Amino acid sequence: MFDKVLAAARRLEGVVHRTPVMTSRLLNEVTGNTVYLKCENFQRIGAFKFRGAYNAVSALPQADRGRGVITYSSGNHAQAIALTGRLLGVATTVIMPSDAPAVKFAATQGYGATVVRYDKETTTREKMAEEMIARYGYTLIPPYDHEEVAAGQGTAAKELIEDTGSLDYVFAPCGGGGLLSGTAVSTKHLLPDSRVIGVEPELADDATRSFKTGELHTVHNPPTIADGLRTPYLGKVTFPLVQRYVDDMVTVSEEEIISTMYYLWTRLKIVVEPSGAVSLAPLLHRKLPIAGKRVGVILSGGNVDVREAGKLFAAITD
Amino acid sequence: MFDKVLAAARRLEGVVHRTPVMTSRLLNEVTGNTVYLKCENFQRIGAFKFRGAYNAVSALPQADRGRGVITYSSGNHAQAIALTGRLLGVATTVIMPSDAPAVKFAATQGYGATVVRYDKETTTREKMAEEMIARYGYTLIPPYDHEEVAAGQGTAAKELIEDTGSLDYVFAPCGGGGLLSGTAVSTKHLLPDSRVIGVEPELADDATRSFKTGELHTVHNPPTIADGLRTPYLGKVTFPLVQRYVDDMVTVSEEEIISTMYYLWTRLKIVVEPSGAVSLAPLLHRKLPIAGKRVGVILSGGNVDVREAGKLFAAITD
Repeated sequence: MFDKVLAAARRLEGVVHRTPVMTSRLLNEVTGNTVYLKCENFQRIGAFKFRGAYNAVSALPQADRGRGVITYSSGNHAQAIALTGRLLGVATTVIMPSDAPAVKFAATQGYGATVVRYDKETTTREKMAEEMIARYGYTLIPPYDHEEVAAGQGTAAKELIEDTGSLDYVFAPCGGGGLLSGTAVSTKHLLPDSRVIGVEPELADDATRSFKTGELHTVHNPPTIADGLRTPYLGKVTFPLVQRYVDDMVTVSEEEIISTMYYLWTRLKIVVEPSGAVSLAPLLHRKLPIAGKRVGVILSGGNVDVREAGKLFAAITD
Repeated sequence: MFDKVLAAARRLEGVVHRTPVMTSRLLNEVTGNTVYLKCENFQRIGAFKFRGAYNAVSALPQADRGRGVITYSSGNHAQAIALTGRLLGVATTVIMPSDAPAVKFAATQGYGATVVRYDKETTTREKMAEEMIARYGYTLIPPYDHEEVAAGQGTAAKELIEDTGSLDYVFAPCGGGGLLSGTAVSTKHLLPDSRVIGVEPELADDATRSFKTGELHTVHNPPTIADGLRTPYLGKVTFPLVQRYVDDMVTVSEEEIISTMYYLWTRLKIVVEPSGAVSLAPLLHRKLPIAGKRVGVILSGGNVDVREAGKLFAAITD
């Protein structure tokens, strides 16, 4: 699988931002470790998702590209596919629920995608996609359950390790497992002795339960603030990769997510979305017995309504 | 004067962060120029002020250091002096108005400074400082009107130019003129053909009026959101430097400051305070006939209450 990450890195060169790795004396003191933050909030479209989307569409045969691609997402993957289509000259269709925020709809359309809405009460996004694929011959690029998508996401950890050298641990958030499995593939190949830890919100702990039991668990629309991690279950592609390459999974509370986000905004001066703060939360809150180690952390994205964030932070006292 | 900047750079090496220079394809498109952002929001204590404070205290003779230093500030300079004192083992006293926010008081004390409050109704900060200097032999390190302070601030532009190479313009915000004059000294020495532009809030346009008329103008407690730029006038040291080395001054409205800050938070994913956003505002809002140029911009700091920022942004519609 790492050969796919290498191929992805070649396709993405000069197209994705090689995002910076940030460090902070204060953060090292607070966590008791040397922490390297891979800042995918600075990635194009504001999240790592552009890596997987661009890689998967680039990897398609020319004939498939010509017929166009389709996906379902109301989050960062939607904009990632839309921007990819614009850059590669491929027609893109994005299926979104009719109650998705207008700003997501507009942003995705702004990149040139055709957005199709569906009513959650009467159909599912998968059914909508199947119908349109049957009719128009589109190729489906799902948000995470796809080898080339996961391989693209794995390029972030590859860059991180190239920049930092040896690491004892690498932390990544887990929704559907695309970023986590890509991260694990890259890390275990480049640093076989390093431990890869997936992090989930307690309220959306399906992957943690699946990982610990070996059986696929699901959650339904979990009320976590980390909207990027509300995915119902690991995928057919990502679950085996997570089982094979990830060392452990941990969960964090909503309060821990919010206070980590607040820490990143106020001390590191970077805007990170709730899902992006999840991966740092176990370290900042010292939930694991890790001390004196070199730790890489993937901060996955920065797309959050900053007008609403004040309300989240209201309960925090300095 | 540039020799003082060079001496400052030597004193600051390994102590200040060499802050990153950020670029953004979107920002270049929107402004019609190639823009290089010098991110002093990532500096220690969250603002450029640490450069000048550390340089000025380091430059003191050992005997003066032994008696301790004093300053007046309820802003970033207070924390800059306090951290400097801790790092150099110099006792520091900071005079703050009795109605300064508790969080500023606590942060400054947290670095180990002695904070002394005064009542604005009955005395001035300058008088308080004089009395304490007479009694204890402290050395005053004022927030901006001091050659070594201005020289320290000039190291930011020096680093910027070292990283970017030639620039057609350099923009810096102007409060008391410490950062602007240091920036202008460095820029004019390293790039004599480059133009240096100072930026002020319309509501605190004393320096612009002073610059244009050649006579010192003042403002009294101007109600701009850019709290770091509420200083009443240019200093005895900084006014002549601004007159000699700065090419032009422009002003921006409160709405332009807020929308620039919003742009930096949401598109660049960095937390910049209102005073820090001021320098980018004329470019983002195309207030000057500059196109196709290489432009450096000093983003001065990132210390802002993120819980309050949502209210500022409330009126912004995407």
